[in-house]
Amino acid sequence: MASELALYGYWRSSAVYRVRIALNLKGLAYETHPVHLLSDGGEQHGAAYRALNPQQLLPCLTDGDRVLTQSMAIMEYLEEMHPEPPLLPVDARSRARVRALALAMACDIHPLGNLRVLQYLEGSFGADDEAKLAWSRHWIGEGFDAIEAMLAGSAATGRYCHGDTPGMADACLVPQAYNALRWKLPLERWPTIARIHAACNALEAFRQALPERQPDAP
Amino acid sequence: MASELALYGYWRSSAVYRVRIALNLKGLAYETHPVHLLSDGGEQHGAAYRALNPQQLLPCLTDGDRVLTQSMAIMEYLEEMHPEPPLLPVDARSRARVRALALAMACDIHPLGNLRVLQYLEGSFGADDEAKLAWSRHWIGEGFDAIEAMLAGSAATGRYCHGDTPGMADACLVPQAYNALRWKLPLERWPTIARIHAACNALEAFRQALPERQPDAP
Repeated sequence: MASELALYGYWRSSAVYRVRIALNLKGLAYETHPVHLLSDGGEQHGAAYRALNPQQLLPCLTDGDRVLTQSMAIMEYLEEMHPEPPLLPVDARSRARVRALALAMACDIHPLGNLRVLQYLEGSFGADDEAKLAWSRHWIGEGFDAIEAMLAGSAATGRYCHGDTPGMADACLVPQAYNALRWKLPLERWPTIARIHAACNALEAFRQALPERQPDAP
Repeated sequence: MASELALYGYWRSSAVYRVRIALNLKGLAYETHPVHLLSDGGEQHGAAYRALNPQQLLPCLTDGDRVLTQSMAIMEYLEEMHPEPPLLPVDARSRARVRALALAMACDIHPLGNLRVLQYLEGSFGADDEAKLAWSRHWIGEGFDAIEAMLAGSAATGRYCHGDTPGMADACLVPQAYNALRWKLPLERWPTIARIHAACNALEAFRQALPERQPDAP
Protein backbone atom coordinates (compact mmCIF):
# COMPACT_ATOMS: atom_id res chain seq x y z
CA MET A 1 0.00 0.00 0.00
CA ALA A 2 1.27 3.48 -0.81
CA SER A 3 2.23 5.68 2.08
CA GLU A 4 -0.12 8.52 2.88
CA LEU A 5 2.83 10.89 3.04
CA ALA A 6 4.15 12.31 -0.23
CA LEU A 7 7.07 14.71 -0.47
CA TYR A 8 7.32 17.08 -3.43
CA GLY A 9 10.94 18.00 -3.76
CA TYR A 10 14.15 18.33 -5.70
CA TRP A 11 17.21 16.26 -4.85
CA ARG A 12 19.52 19.21 -4.17
CA SER A 13 17.10 21.62 -2.42
CA SER A 14 18.24 22.13 1.18
CA ALA A 15 14.75 22.81 2.45
CA VAL A 16 13.57 19.46 1.07
CA TYR A 17 16.69 17.75 2.42
CA ARG A 18 15.72 18.94 5.94
CA VAL A 19 12.30 17.33 5.66
CA ARG A 20 13.77 14.05 4.37
CA ILE A 21 16.01 13.93 7.46
CA ALA A 22 13.06 14.62 9.76
CA LEU A 23 10.93 11.92 8.10
CA ASN A 24 13.80 9.42 8.32
CA LEU A 25 14.56 10.25 11.97
CA LYS A 26 10.92 9.52 12.76
CA GLY A 27 10.95 6.37 10.66
CA LEU A 28 8.08 7.59 8.45
CA ALA A 29 7.74 6.15 4.94
CA TYR A 30 6.84 8.55 2.15
CA GLU A 31 6.47 8.73 -1.61
CA THR A 32 8.82 11.01 -3.54
CA HIS A 33 7.42 13.36 -6.19
CA PRO A 34 10.28 15.13 -7.99
CA VAL A 35 9.71 18.75 -9.00
CA HIS A 36 12.53 19.79 -11.31
CA LEU A 37 13.67 23.31 -10.40
CA LEU A 38 15.57 23.89 -13.64
CA SER A 39 13.70 22.17 -16.48
CA ASP A 40 11.48 24.35 -18.69
CA GLY A 41 11.98 27.43 -16.50
CA GLY A 42 11.17 25.43 -13.37
CA GLU A 43 8.41 22.89 -12.71
CA GLN A 44 7.69 24.68 -9.42
CA HIS A 45 6.13 27.48 -11.49
CA GLY A 46 3.84 25.10 -13.43
CA ALA A 47 0.09 24.96 -12.83
CA ALA A 48 0.19 21.53 -11.17
CA TYR A 49 2.63 22.53 -8.44
CA ARG A 50 1.22 26.02 -8.00
CA ALA A 51 -2.15 24.49 -7.17
CA LEU A 52 -0.41 22.74 -4.25
CA ASN A 53 1.79 25.64 -3.19
CA PRO A 54 1.13 29.19 -4.43
CA GLN A 55 4.57 30.16 -3.13
CA GLN A 56 6.10 28.04 -5.94
CA LEU A 57 8.83 26.99 -3.53
CA LEU A 58 9.85 23.57 -2.25
CA PRO A 59 9.10 21.48 -0.30
CA CYS A 60 5.48 20.49 -0.09
CA LEU A 61 4.40 17.49 1.96
CA THR A 62 0.95 15.98 1.55
CA ASP A 63 -0.54 13.87 4.33
CA GLY A 64 -3.69 12.38 2.83
CA ASP A 65 -5.68 15.46 1.78
CA ARG A 66 -3.58 17.83 3.90
CA VAL A 67 -1.17 20.04 2.00
CA LEU A 68 1.75 21.31 4.08
CA THR A 69 4.40 23.82 3.05
CA GLN A 70 7.48 25.46 4.61
CA SER A 71 10.09 23.03 5.88
CA MET A 72 10.09 24.38 9.44
CA ALA A 73 6.27 24.19 9.67
CA ILE A 74 6.38 20.67 8.21
CA MET A 75 8.89 19.54 10.86
CA GLU A 76 6.72 21.02 13.63
CA TYR A 77 3.71 19.22 12.13
CA LEU A 78 5.55 15.89 12.04
CA GLU A 79 6.58 16.46 15.66
CA GLU A 80 2.95 17.05 16.69
CA MET A 81 1.51 14.14 14.69
CA HIS A 82 4.31 11.64 15.38
CA PRO A 83 5.94 12.68 18.67
CA GLU A 84 8.35 9.72 18.88
CA PRO A 85 11.25 9.90 18.45
CA PRO A 86 11.22 13.64 19.18
CA LEU A 87 12.92 16.32 17.06
CA LEU A 88 12.69 18.83 19.92
CA PRO A 89 13.68 18.52 23.58
CA VAL A 90 11.07 18.60 26.35
CA ASP A 91 11.53 21.90 28.19
CA ALA A 92 10.61 25.27 26.74
CA ARG A 93 14.07 26.80 27.15
CA SER A 94 15.78 23.95 25.29
CA ARG A 95 13.08 23.90 22.61
CA ALA A 96 13.70 27.61 22.07
CA ARG A 97 17.42 26.98 21.72
CA VAL A 98 16.95 24.25 19.12
CA ARG A 99 14.45 26.34 17.16
CA ALA A 100 16.74 29.37 17.27
CA LEU A 101 19.63 27.33 15.84
CA ALA A 102 17.37 25.89 13.15
CA LEU A 103 15.95 29.32 12.25
CA ALA A 104 19.41 30.90 12.17
CA MET A 105 19.94 28.64 9.16
CA ALA A 106 16.41 28.56 7.73
CA CYS A 107 15.87 32.34 7.91
CA ASP A 108 19.28 33.94 7.91
CA ILE A 109 21.44 31.77 5.64
CA HIS A 110 19.45 29.58 3.30
CA PRO A 111 16.98 32.08 1.73
CA LEU A 112 19.85 34.28 0.55
CA GLY A 113 21.40 31.48 -1.49
CA ASN A 114 18.15 30.37 -3.09
CA LEU A 115 17.99 29.92 -6.86
CA ARG A 116 15.52 32.79 -7.39
CA VAL A 117 17.84 35.17 -5.52
CA LEU A 118 20.89 34.17 -7.58
CA GLN A 119 18.77 34.64 -10.72
CA TYR A 120 17.85 38.18 -9.61
CA LEU A 121 21.50 39.03 -8.87
CA GLU A 122 22.46 37.87 -12.36
CA GLY A 123 19.52 39.54 -14.13
CA SER A 124 19.52 42.90 -12.35
CA PHE A 125 23.08 43.37 -11.14
CA GLY A 126 24.89 41.41 -13.85
CA ALA A 127 26.44 39.12 -11.24
CA ASP A 128 28.65 36.50 -12.90
CA ASP A 129 29.38 33.04 -11.50
CA GLU A 130 32.23 34.35 -9.40
CA ALA A 131 30.13 37.12 -7.85
CA LYS A 132 27.28 34.71 -7.13
CA LEU A 133 29.72 32.29 -5.50
CA ALA A 134 31.16 35.09 -3.35
CA TRP A 135 27.60 36.05 -2.34
CA SER A 136 26.67 32.49 -1.33
CA ARG A 137 29.92 32.00 0.55
CA HIS A 138 29.55 35.32 2.36
CA TRP A 139 26.17 34.47 3.89
CA ILE A 140 27.09 30.89 4.75
CA GLY A 141 30.35 32.13 6.30
CA GLU A 142 28.75 34.87 8.38
CA GLY A 143 25.90 32.57 9.42
CA PHE A 144 28.13 29.63 10.32
CA ASP A 145 30.50 31.90 12.28
CA ALA A 146 27.53 32.83 14.50
CA ILE A 147 26.22 29.27 14.74
CA GLU A 148 29.68 27.97 15.62
CA ALA A 149 29.76 30.52 18.48
CA MET A 150 26.26 29.49 19.60
CA LEU A 151 27.22 25.80 19.60
CA ALA A 152 30.76 26.03 20.98
CA GLY A 153 29.69 28.46 23.71
CA SER A 154 26.93 26.30 25.18
CA ALA A 155 27.08 23.37 27.56
CA ALA A 156 23.83 22.17 25.97
CA THR A 157 25.67 21.16 22.80
CA GLY A 158 26.45 17.46 22.80
CA ARG A 159 27.22 14.90 20.14
CA TYR A 160 24.60 16.77 18.12
CA CYS A 161 23.40 20.39 18.21
CA HIS A 162 21.47 19.77 21.40
CA GLY A 163 22.57 16.91 23.62
CA ASP A 164 23.11 13.42 22.26
CA THR A 165 19.91 13.07 20.26
CA PRO A 166 19.69 14.36 16.67
CA GLY A 167 16.82 16.76 16.06
CA MET A 168 15.45 19.79 14.27
CA ALA A 169 18.63 21.88 14.40
CA ASP A 170 20.71 19.00 13.01
CA ALA A 171 18.15 18.55 10.21
CA CYS A 172 18.94 22.15 9.21
CA LEU A 173 22.68 22.05 9.86
CA VAL A 174 23.52 19.08 7.64
CA PRO A 175 21.89 20.46 4.44
CA GLN A 176 23.51 23.85 5.08
CA ALA A 177 26.91 22.18 5.56
CA TYR A 178 26.29 20.26 2.32
CA ASN A 179 25.81 23.61 0.58
CA ALA A 180 28.96 25.01 2.17
CA LEU A 181 30.97 22.08 0.79
CA ARG A 182 29.28 22.47 -2.59
CA TRP A 183 30.59 26.04 -2.70
CA LYS A 184 34.05 24.85 -1.57
CA LEU A 185 33.93 26.27 1.94
CA PRO A 186 35.88 23.78 4.08
CA LEU A 187 34.09 23.01 7.34
CA GLU A 188 37.37 23.10 9.33
CA ARG A 189 36.73 26.82 9.86
CA TRP A 190 33.87 25.73 12.17
CA PRO A 191 35.12 22.78 14.24
CA THR A 192 31.90 22.18 16.19
CA ILE A 193 29.79 22.30 13.03
CA ALA A 194 32.24 19.94 11.31
CA ARG A 195 32.11 17.51 14.22
CA ILE A 196 28.30 17.49 14.38
CA HIS A 197 28.04 17.20 10.60
CA ALA A 198 30.23 14.06 10.71
CA ALA A 199 28.30 12.60 13.65
CA CYS A 200 24.99 13.09 11.82
CA ASN A 201 26.23 11.59 8.58
CA ALA A 202 27.26 8.47 10.48
CA LEU A 203 23.53 7.84 11.01
CA GLU A 204 21.46 6.00 8.41
CA ALA A 205 18.60 8.55 8.72
CA PHE A 206 20.94 11.27 7.47
CA ARG A 207 22.76 9.12 4.91
CA GLN A 208 19.52 8.05 3.24
CA ALA A 209 18.51 11.70 2.95
CA LEU A 210 21.67 12.67 1.03
CA PRO A 211 20.88 14.47 -2.24
CA GLU A 212 22.88 11.98 -4.31
CA ARG A 213 20.73 9.12 -3.03
CA GLN A 214 17.44 10.61 -4.28
CA PRO A 215 15.66 9.09 -7.28
CA ASP A 216 15.81 12.37 -9.27
CA ALA A 217 19.56 12.89 -8.72
CA PRO A 218 21.46 12.78 -12.02
CA MET B 1 8.94 45.71 40.31
CA ALA B 2 10.56 45.40 36.92
CA SER B 3 9.20 42.77 34.55
CA GLU B 4 11.35 39.68 34.12
CA LEU B 5 10.99 39.99 30.36
CA ALA B 6 13.31 42.36 28.54
CA LEU B 7 13.23 42.90 24.78
CA TYR B 8 16.37 44.05 22.99
CA GLY B 9 15.23 45.73 19.81
CA TYR B 10 15.13 48.60 17.41
CA TRP B 11 11.94 50.53 16.74
CA ARG B 12 11.82 49.84 13.00
CA SER B 13 13.06 46.22 12.90
CA SER B 14 10.24 43.97 11.65
CA ALA B 15 11.48 40.94 13.54
CA VAL B 16 11.33 42.90 16.81
CA TYR B 17 7.93 44.33 15.85
CA ARG B 18 6.57 40.74 15.57
CA VAL B 19 7.69 39.94 19.11
CA ARG B 20 6.15 43.17 20.47
CA ILE B 21 2.82 42.16 18.93
CA ALA B 22 3.07 38.66 20.42
CA LEU B 23 3.91 40.03 23.88
CA ASN B 24 1.03 42.50 23.69
CA LEU B 25 -1.47 39.88 22.47
CA LYS B 26 -0.55 37.78 25.51
CA GLY B 27 -0.72 40.77 27.81
CA LEU B 28 2.88 40.34 28.97
CA ALA B 29 4.74 43.35 30.32
CA TYR B 30 8.38 43.78 29.29
CA GLU B 31 11.25 46.21 29.53
CA THR B 32 12.58 47.75 26.32
CA HIS B 33 16.34 47.83 25.66
CA PRO B 34 17.03 49.78 22.47
CA VAL B 35 19.89 48.53 20.27
CA HIS B 36 20.60 51.14 17.62
CA LEU B 37 21.21 49.42 14.27
CA LEU B 38 22.77 52.44 12.63
CA SER B 39 24.81 54.34 15.24
CA ASP B 40 28.60 53.77 15.25
CA GLY B 41 28.38 51.00 12.66
CA GLY B 42 25.60 49.26 14.56
CA GLU B 43 25.23 48.58 18.28
CA GLN B 44 24.26 44.99 17.41
CA HIS B 45 27.91 44.38 16.54
CA GLY B 46 29.17 45.71 19.89
CA ALA B 47 30.59 43.41 22.56
CA ALA B 48 27.63 43.87 24.93
CA TYR B 49 25.01 42.70 22.45
CA ARG B 50 27.23 40.03 20.89
CA ALA B 51 27.55 38.41 24.30
CA LEU B 52 23.76 38.03 24.29
CA ASN B 53 23.40 37.04 20.65
CA PRO B 54 26.42 35.93 18.57
CA GLN B 55 24.25 36.32 15.45
CA GLN B 56 24.36 40.10 16.00
CA LEU B 57 20.77 40.27 14.80
CA LEU B 58 17.62 41.48 16.53
CA PRO B 59 15.55 40.66 18.50
CA CYS B 60 16.75 39.12 21.72
CA LEU B 61 14.33 38.48 24.57
CA THR B 62 15.57 37.72 28.05
CA ASP B 63 13.32 35.94 30.54
CA GLY B 64 15.18 36.09 33.83
CA ASP B 65 18.51 34.39 33.02
CA ARG B 66 17.19 32.82 29.81
CA VAL B 67 18.43 34.40 26.59
CA LEU B 68 16.15 33.81 23.60
CA THR B 69 16.81 34.73 19.97
CA GLN B 70 15.02 34.40 16.61
CA SER B 71 11.57 35.99 16.53
CA MET B 72 9.77 32.79 15.46
CA ALA B 73 11.46 30.76 18.23
CA ILE B 74 10.61 33.51 20.73
CA MET B 75 6.93 33.42 19.74
CA GLU B 76 6.86 29.62 20.11
CA TYR B 77 8.51 30.00 23.53
CA LEU B 78 5.93 32.56 24.65
CA GLU B 79 3.19 30.22 23.43
CA GLU B 80 4.61 27.34 25.49
CA MET B 81 5.23 29.40 28.65
CA HIS B 82 2.06 31.51 28.49
CA PRO B 83 -0.51 29.51 26.52
CA GLU B 84 -3.39 31.97 26.97
CA PRO B 85 -4.49 33.66 24.83
CA PRO B 86 -3.05 31.38 22.13
CA LEU B 87 -1.07 32.54 19.09
CA LEU B 88 -1.65 29.19 17.37
CA PRO B 89 -4.85 27.20 16.81
CA VAL B 90 -5.39 23.83 18.50
CA ASP B 91 -5.22 21.20 15.74
CA ALA B 92 -1.99 20.21 14.00
CA ARG B 93 -3.27 20.95 10.48
CA SER B 94 -4.29 24.51 11.40
CA ARG B 95 -1.09 25.08 13.36
CA ALA B 96 0.89 24.05 10.29
CA ARG B 97 -1.11 26.51 8.16
CA VAL B 98 -0.45 29.42 10.53
CA ARG B 99 3.24 28.55 10.82
CA ALA B 100 3.57 28.24 7.03
CA LEU B 101 2.04 31.70 6.54
CA ALA B 102 4.32 33.16 9.21
CA LEU B 103 7.42 31.49 7.76
CA ALA B 104 6.54 32.58 4.23
CA MET B 105 7.20 36.08 5.59
CA ALA B 106 9.93 35.31 8.13
CA CYS B 107 12.02 33.15 5.75
CA ASP B 108 11.11 34.15 2.23
CA ILE B 109 10.50 37.91 2.38
CA HIS B 110 11.99 39.58 5.40
CA PRO B 111 15.61 38.29 5.35
CA LEU B 112 16.11 39.59 1.81
CA GLY B 113 15.28 43.16 2.81
CA ASN B 114 17.46 43.16 5.90
CA LEU B 115 19.94 46.00 6.43
CA ARG B 116 23.02 43.79 6.10
CA VAL B 117 21.78 42.51 2.73
CA LEU B 118 21.17 46.01 1.39
CA GLN B 119 24.65 46.97 2.61
CA TYR B 120 26.15 44.05 0.66
CA LEU B 121 24.23 44.99 -2.50
CA GLU B 122 25.58 48.52 -2.24
CA GLY B 123 29.13 47.52 -1.37
CA SER B 124 29.63 44.66 -3.83
CA PHE B 125 27.23 45.41 -6.69
CA GLY B 126 27.19 49.20 -6.45
CA ALA B 127 23.42 49.18 -5.94
CA ASP B 128 22.12 52.74 -5.55
CA ASP B 129 19.00 53.73 -3.60
CA GLU B 130 16.75 53.06 -6.59
CA ALA B 131 18.19 49.57 -7.16
CA LYS B 132 17.88 48.72 -3.47
CA LEU B 133 14.28 49.94 -3.47
CA ALA B 134 13.50 47.79 -6.53
CA TRP B 135 15.08 44.81 -4.79
CA SER B 136 13.04 45.27 -1.60
CA ARG B 137 9.84 45.80 -3.55
CA HIS B 138 10.47 42.76 -5.73
CA TRP B 139 10.68 40.33 -2.81
CA ILE B 140 7.78 41.85 -0.90
CA GLY B 141 5.70 41.84 -4.09
CA GLU B 142 6.47 38.23 -5.01
CA GLY B 143 6.01 37.11 -1.43
CA PHE B 144 2.76 38.96 -0.86
CA ASP B 145 1.35 37.69 -4.19
CA ALA B 146 1.78 34.16 -2.86
CA ILE B 147 0.47 34.97 0.61
CA GLU B 148 -2.57 36.71 -0.88
CA ALA B 149 -3.28 33.50 -2.84
CA MET B 150 -2.80 31.38 0.30
CA LEU B 151 -5.19 33.62 2.30
CA ALA B 152 -7.83 34.33 -0.37
CA GLY B 153 -7.92 30.68 -1.47
CA SER B 154 -8.64 29.21 1.97
CA ALA B 155 -11.88 28.95 3.92
CA ALA B 156 -9.75 28.98 7.08
CA THR B 157 -9.00 32.69 6.62
CA GLY B 158 -11.29 34.83 8.72
CA ARG B 159 -11.15 38.32 10.11
CA TYR B 160 -7.46 37.56 10.65
CA CYS B 161 -5.05 35.18 8.87
CA HIS B 162 -6.63 32.19 10.59
CA GLY B 163 -10.20 32.50 11.79
CA ASP B 164 -11.30 35.37 13.97
CA THR B 165 -8.48 35.34 16.50
CA PRO B 166 -5.23 37.20 15.83
CA GLY B 167 -2.12 35.05 16.09
CA MET B 168 1.37 34.22 14.92
CA ALA B 169 0.74 34.78 11.21
CA ASP B 170 -0.81 38.20 11.88
CA ALA B 171 2.19 39.10 14.04
CA CYS B 172 4.34 38.56 10.94
CA LEU B 173 1.93 40.05 8.40
CA VAL B 174 1.54 43.47 10.01
CA PRO B 175 5.28 44.28 10.23
CA GLN B 176 5.76 43.07 6.66
CA ALA B 177 2.86 45.25 5.48
CA TYR B 178 4.41 48.16 7.39
CA ASN B 179 7.58 47.61 5.35
CA ALA B 180 5.61 47.43 2.11
CA LEU B 181 4.05 50.81 2.87
CA ARG B 182 7.44 52.20 3.85
CA TRP B 183 8.69 51.26 0.37
CA LYS B 184 5.54 52.80 -1.20
CA LEU B 185 3.90 49.55 -2.23
CA PRO B 186 0.15 50.18 -1.85
CA LEU B 187 -1.59 47.25 -0.14
CA GLU B 188 -4.57 47.47 -2.52
CA ARG B 189 -2.74 45.01 -4.78
CA TRP B 190 -3.43 42.38 -2.07
CA PRO B 191 -7.02 42.92 -0.88
CA THR B 192 -7.05 40.16 1.75
CA ILE B 193 -3.72 41.28 3.21
CA ALA B 194 -4.98 44.89 3.24
CA ARG B 195 -8.19 43.87 5.02
CA ILE B 196 -6.39 41.80 7.66
CA HIS B 197 -3.79 44.53 8.16
CA ALA B 198 -6.56 47.03 8.89
CA ALA B 199 -8.37 44.61 11.21
CA CYS B 200 -5.18 44.01 13.20
CA ASN B 201 -4.33 47.67 13.50
CA ALA B 202 -7.76 48.29 14.99
CA LEU B 203 -6.57 46.30 18.01
CA GLU B 204 -4.67 47.98 20.82
CA ALA B 205 -2.13 45.11 20.97
CA PHE B 206 -1.04 45.93 17.43
CA ARG B 207 -1.29 49.70 17.79
CA GLN B 208 0.94 49.74 20.85
CA ALA B 209 3.53 47.72 18.92
CA LEU B 210 3.77 50.27 16.08
CA PRO B 211 7.36 51.38 15.43
CA GLU B 212 6.50 55.07 15.89
CA ARG B 213 5.26 54.36 19.40
CA GLN B 214 8.52 52.89 20.65
CA PRO B 215 10.74 54.85 23.05
CA ASP B 216 13.70 54.81 20.64
CA ALA B 217 11.69 56.11 17.65
CA PRO B 218 13.00 59.50 16.50
